[in-house]
Amino acid sequence: MESNIIYVPMALAIVGLLFMFIKMSWVKKQPAGDEKMQSISKSIKEGALAFLAAEYRLLLIFVVMASVALGVVSYIVPTTHWIIIVAFIFGAVFSGLAGNIGMRIATDANARTAEAAKTSLPHALKVSFGGGTVMGLGVAGLAVLGLSIFFMIFLKMFVTGEGSFYEEMTVALEALAGFSLGAECIALFARVGGGIYTKAADVGADLVGKVEAGIPEDDPRNPATIADNVGDNVGDVAGMGADLFGSYVATVLAAMVLGNYVIRDMSATTQFIDAFSNMGPILLPLVIAGVGVLASILGTFLVRISNNDAKESVVQKALDTGNWVSIGITWVASWFLIRWMLPMTMEMKFFGEGIKVIPSRHVFYAATIGLAVGALISLVTAYYTSLGKTPVLKIVKNSSTGAATNIISGLAVGMKSTFLSVILFAVAIWSAYVLAGFYGVALAASAMMATTAMQLAIDAFGPIADNAGGVAEMSELEPHVRERTDILDSVGNTTAAVGKGFAIASAALTALALFAAYVTFTGIDGINIFKAPVLAALFIGGMIPVIFSALAMESVGKAAGQMVEEVRRQFREIPGIMEGTGTPEYGKCVDISTKAALKEMVIPGLITIVTPVVMGIGTALVNDDFLLGAEVLGGYMAGVCVSGVMWAIFQNNAGGAWDNAKKSFEAGVEINGETFYKHKEDNPSPPHQAAVTGDTVGDPFKDTSGPSMNILIKLTCLVGLVIAPILGGHSSEEGLANIEDEVSIEMTLDAKDMAKATVNYSTVKEGEKVSETIVFEGTEAEVKKELEAFEASIKTDANKVEKVIKEVKITKE
Amino acid sequence: MESNIIYVPMALAIVGLLFMFIKMSWVKKQPAGDEKMQSISKSIKEGALAFLAAEYRLLLIFVVMASVALGVVSYIVPTTHWIIIVAFIFGAVFSGLAGNIGMRIATDANARTAEAAKTSLPHALKVSFGGGTVMGLGVAGLAVLGLSIFFMIFLKMFVTGEGSFYEEMTVALEALAGFSLGAECIALFARVGGGIYTKAADVGADLVGKVEAGIPEDDPRNPATIADNVGDNVGDVAGMGADLFGSYVATVLAAMVLGNYVIRDMSATTQFIDAFSNMGPILLPLVIAGVGVLASILGTFLVRISNNDAKESVVQKALDTGNWVSIGITWVASWFLIRWMLPMTMEMKFFGEGIKVIPSRHVFYAATIGLAVGALISLVTAYYTSLGKTPVLKIVKNSSTGAATNIISGLAVGMKSTFLSVILFAVAIWSAYVLAGFYGVALAASAMMATTAMQLAIDAFGPIADNAGGVAEMSELEPHVRERTDILDSVGNTTAAVGKGFAIASAALTALALFAAYVTFTGIDGINIFKAPVLAALFIGGMIPVIFSALAMESVGKAAGQMVEEVRRQFREIPGIMEGTGTPEYGKCVDISTKAALKEMVIPGLITIVTPVVMGIGTALVNDDFLLGAEVLGGYMAGVCVSGVMWAIFQNNAGGAWDNAKKSFEAGVEINGETFYKHKEDNPSPPHQAAVTGDTVGDPFKDTSGPSMNILIKLTCLVGLVIAPILGGHSSEEGLANIEDEVSIEMTLDAKDMAKATVNYSTVKEGEKVSETIVFEGTEAEVKKELEAFEASIKTDANKVEKVIKEVKITKE
Repeated sequence: MESNIIYVPMALAIVGLLFMFIKMSWVKKQPAGDEKMQSISKSIKEGALAFLAAEYRLLLIFVVMASVALGVVSYIVPTTHWIIIVAFIFGAVFSGLAGNIGMRIATDANARTAEAAKTSLPHALKVSFGGGTVMGLGVAGLAVLGLSIFFMIFLKMFVTGEGSFYEEMTVALEALAGFSLGAECIALFARVGGGIYTKAADVGADLVGKVEAGIPEDDPRNPATIADNVGDNVGDVAGMGADLFGSYVATVLAAMVLGNYVIRDMSATTQFIDAFSNMGPILLPLVIAGVGVLASILGTFLVRISNNDAKESVVQKALDTGNWVSIGITWVASWFLIRWMLPMTMEMKFFGEGIKVIPSRHVFYAATIGLAVGALISLVTAYYTSLGKTPVLKIVKNSSTGAATNIISGLAVGMKSTFLSVILFAVAIWSAYVLAGFYGVALAASAMMATTAMQLAIDAFGPIADNAGGVAEMSELEPHVRERTDILDSVGNTTAAVGKGFAIASAALTALALFAAYVTFTGIDGINIFKAPVLAALFIGGMIPVIFSALAMESVGKAAGQMVEEVRRQFREIPGIMEGTGTPEYGKCVDISTKAALKEMVIPGLITIVTPVVMGIGTALVNDDFLLGAEVLGGYMAGVCVSGVMWAIFQNNAGGAWDNAKKSFEAGVEINGETFYKHKEDNPSPPHQAAVTGDTVGDPFKDTSGPSMNILIKLTCLVGLVIAPILGGHSSEEGLANIEDEVSIEMTLDAKDMAKATVNYSTVKEGEKVSETIVFEGTEAEVKKELEAFEASIKTDANKVEKVIKEVKITKE
Repeated sequence: MESNIIYVPMALAIVGLLFMFIKMSWVKKQPAGDEKMQSISKSIKEGALAFLAAEYRLLLIFVVMASVALGVVSYIVPTTHWIIIVAFIFGAVFSGLAGNIGMRIATDANARTAEAAKTSLPHALKVSFGGGTVMGLGVAGLAVLGLSIFFMIFLKMFVTGEGSFYEEMTVALEALAGFSLGAECIALFARVGGGIYTKAADVGADLVGKVEAGIPEDDPRNPATIADNVGDNVGDVAGMGADLFGSYVATVLAAMVLGNYVIRDMSATTQFIDAFSNMGPILLPLVIAGVGVLASILGTFLVRISNNDAKESVVQKALDTGNWVSIGITWVASWFLIRWMLPMTMEMKFFGEGIKVIPSRHVFYAATIGLAVGALISLVTAYYTSLGKTPVLKIVKNSSTGAATNIISGLAVGMKSTFLSVILFAVAIWSAYVLAGFYGVALAASAMMATTAMQLAIDAFGPIADNAGGVAEMSELEPHVRERTDILDSVGNTTAAVGKGFAIASAALTALALFAAYVTFTGIDGINIFKAPVLAALFIGGMIPVIFSALAMESVGKAAGQMVEEVRRQFREIPGIMEGTGTPEYGKCVDISTKAALKEMVIPGLITIVTPVVMGIGTALVNDDFLLGAEVLGGYMAGVCVSGVMWAIFQNNAGGAWDNAKKSFEAGVEINGETFYKHKEDNPSPPHQAAVTGDTVGDPFKDTSGPSMNILIKLTCLVGLVIAPILGGHSSEEGLANIEDEVSIEMTLDAKDMAKATVNYSTVKEGEKVSETIVFEGTEAEVKKELEAFEASIKTDANKVEKVIKEVKITKE
């Protein structure tokens, strides 16, 4: 039975998806309100689905091109099977499907939440969180299901027992990387496109509607209001969903690849055998993910309130309870799973330290660290972005001296928030590594990601509540409905900020696990930044997130500008809009956001995908040195990760803090003894205006460029992993063919015991045989080391060089 | 004669200082204007000197503490001589002296420039640039003189010929590192303190004076106006001078250290001999620096204009001519110097590639790359920050939709400017390294820094002209005086931005050269970021510049807040200020800026100096592994450099662009067919107000946190270099003592040719002898590699381990 454990995550994923369907039909059965509400909800849904359809059409071109590129890879690298293309396409389709399910339920749930809020806040929470649950389970269920099915197929295809288990499993996991790559590519475009869409519509609607025309948010007279509500779904629901789908798949994949290395290390002397078809360490992360789906389902039952007059804190507590219970269940379950599925002790190779014996409980500790760090980084994020806490209060206070001081203190808050986050993160890497190597790091990430379904349910409920408020406003429902949805919306804002902290923490750990898998895969001796080309690549990598952010921000600016023009035009040209007698052309605004988002997402997307290929393969070809290419690409990846994490935390938290600094004025804030409220014509409030400026700057920070950093770093490492076979690893056998004849080495020692080794060898370059000579000088030990390094650099495991280095004749001068 | 070449840079430095004195007395002989002008100039001078005096008093405490710490280092490390303390103190004193000379002449030259501008623009340029020349030559002359004298003393003390040349020279250069450390520490505090001072005064004066009271800039009724003018000197003159003094010394030092490695590599088989007391590669950078001083003097003669009605472009051209001629002379001279002082071909050890034969002309090419990259990065900086260029125009255009869009586009400009800068920079590292290893990188930096005297003259003339305008305004001189000083000031703004580009480029290359020196010094096998602790350190390093910037920005905010309160108080309490009948208490404002700057510079300064010590030595002690400590510190250094360079470029260029976007409104700008000017009560200009907001945000960016990044990265690497002997290198001999007995290794091969090596050895830990065992498994080749790595990790060049590894008995099972 145990050898069929691969069916366990598959079954759990199916349970998750079944529960999702039940929840979905429950939500759809709820009353959707009067005709006007339904019509508004329908417009939002149509706009959102139209964007998705247009996006998928564009991505189809990309998927075709990327498939061709993957075809080339599989043609060049003998061990990369063409099936990777199929996996890639399915990864893309599953990611799209997950986004689609989320988007449909979110746009169905908004009017129903508003309708429920007419009578009951607890029921409104149930409907909106029900929508979130559908989204979360859809993403997690599809991720686990897709991974399990493809892994099972690839096992059957490649792990036949004819060759070495490690080699065969590597081929299978490489194909599985295609699935992850497909998912992450779609996620990138969904995040960037969605982020641009939502902020263009938001800024456009606000600048002309609120500021110029003086009508409230979500007013049906504003032509951009439907686009604005569509944006919430496109950016926060579909974008976030695709992001976490990608993270989830990549994390599990990375842990599986590292599990394969554990098995290899343990098989060095005697064949590794366990009750799980000899692949316990590989299957463990998949099983933990499956159990996480179950834990999330259990947690959702606890998200409920009973008091119709509940405030934000009660709603927040209900969500927290559900979240903590899910995490707790996963934590306890992982203890049993690790005990059950891993050998009591494992031998792991630590770079430069040889093999260490690791008890399986260390892996559990690493998983615990992952869960703890996920929770702590969420707390840090909450501290820096929450209403009433010191950082936000500081920004509020600095709003009294104008927009400039508001901006400066917001930037400073974002920058300072990197401190604790990075320290936590560094401690996590270091300690998980010390406990159980990079497998420990990957398991920490897997444990953190296991409750993705719950996290996403909590995240997605926010935009649903936000939209419900929009529907209530546009349908001119009674004020108490809006008040209730506002309570949910306000909690949603906090969970959104916290969710971003969680997303970046998981992305960073995932990227590191992928990075470790990459290095091991290429077979290079680590990434040494003392080599100038690697150092240069580190700098270039560090620059990419900065440029990416700049492009994303500029795109929002451009798209928002077009939106402003269009809204102004409609106010000017359509008679009776302001009086409510003329109907605005909502569709035109939706079109503008859609087109701008699709156009602007192309360049950042291509930079992310193409640059690592250029850095790695370009360096390899120019220098005719594939291992240098591999190391340069590794340096680039590290640069992207370090800089990307910093800019993600900075932008997300600065944006979140600015947002809540602005919100603080709704309840009124006291600055130097004077109380300020929201700015109104008859009651001016310059500090609030300054805070609005800060919030507008923060919008693209927190909703476009900031969250894109996660995908940037993960996708960079994934692309590296997929092209790794070209740069090293399996292709070494081809490199071997370059060495002709035996290598001759003469070594002499002079009177002072200084050695000099002359190495003669010949290679075939462009069909011609070329003789080359290298001289090493130094102490005997130094020269021997150089010889070893030389041997590694020509990359051969044949005996040709080996033998002679061992048998070097030492001549005393 | 040639063996006395050490006297050449010394003599050239003295020539530079003599020329400085001549220029100084010429400037002082110029008429200083009427009594009012002299009194204002005197107030500025007194305020500036009072700040310096207070700063030096505080730094005295720091120097004493650091000296004690260095004493501890020299006590622990047998090869670190206590003389490093003396060198450190002199480095600090020389740096202070250079700042003092610059500050005195700048505050003398301001009124004299204003007086000259009464009659002649060419003469005003001559006076202000004369002041800048004094500053530039003072800094460069003292740097070269200090380095030459101390190097000569240390040569006499340590390079006696009794031991190995390399070892003795290492001791001498280590002591010289103390001089550099002293200079850089003072530079850090001068930059940060000066940056906080100048922006606190500037923002304070502007917010209350210009915005609230509606009086123009530099109006004598504004109590903060003297503090504002003092700030220009304290920040732009003394801060910049100390920064470049530190860079200059550090660059030359790093190149000398790397020159010593070149000699070591070449002496591996036969003793290196040349006509320069066998130390041509070490002396070369010093001689190039000396020649650069001469080239700068020659260049200053070309900075002149003849037309009294000249515009900015003519002044700019005069400065450019002087600059390019200096660079050209240095370039040509370096060709001859390199040909003369270096052997025709050199053998250099490339990490992982063995020894390569490098012709000396490759070093010249590397120097050329340094000069070219310095010039190109300046051009890139100019493009992103100049009036009339696309980036600034974009910000101007975005000012029409409010402060938020102005801020977003300014941030985007700063971020985008990292692209070309980093690419140039990566190409420079990579190509200089390929040409001549890290010695090539260091020589590229040295060549770039050689014309520091000229660069600084061009930089320092700006604040002098700015102050001259202030004196003219406060003394109520005729408008044409202010117009003329404004022309000079405007050119000065461009040169300031360009100077910042140059400063960051040189700082980055210097830091890399120091980084290379550090790695070689500690004797570690490079910095491998595939080890999780090193990777964690890379992240922590990447976070430091972000936190540093946040602290610096917040400090400006705090200090500016106090200034605002004080100015408001004076307006309120001193009768007749606004009518011009009451005299404001200028001194109180000067005091506030002084105290705030001194108080706020402490924390960022300590973070910079203490963190690398904690990372390196902390890791070493906690893990009882000094080489791991060395590698972790290396990862930290790399993180600081990568992130620091990015944030420096981002902040400097965003700040510069915002500044000039605001300035664009002075001549009027056309946005969407409408022309906007500066905001006035009777002629409101919302876009200009938005641009002023952007400029205020940019002020701390470009004058406080941005420029501090240079020193942060250099000082981090210098601290690393100074503590390197504790972590590795010489202390390895102590580590050696830890290995007791011979190391026994048994190696077995099983039927499948898989090897297993069991290593038994014993060490002494805390006085007790402990036996340890390590097992390596894998293919025979893998195990051998692990054994080599193990050997390297226990760090011994004795034969104890060596012999046994060579003689490993292989048993067939």
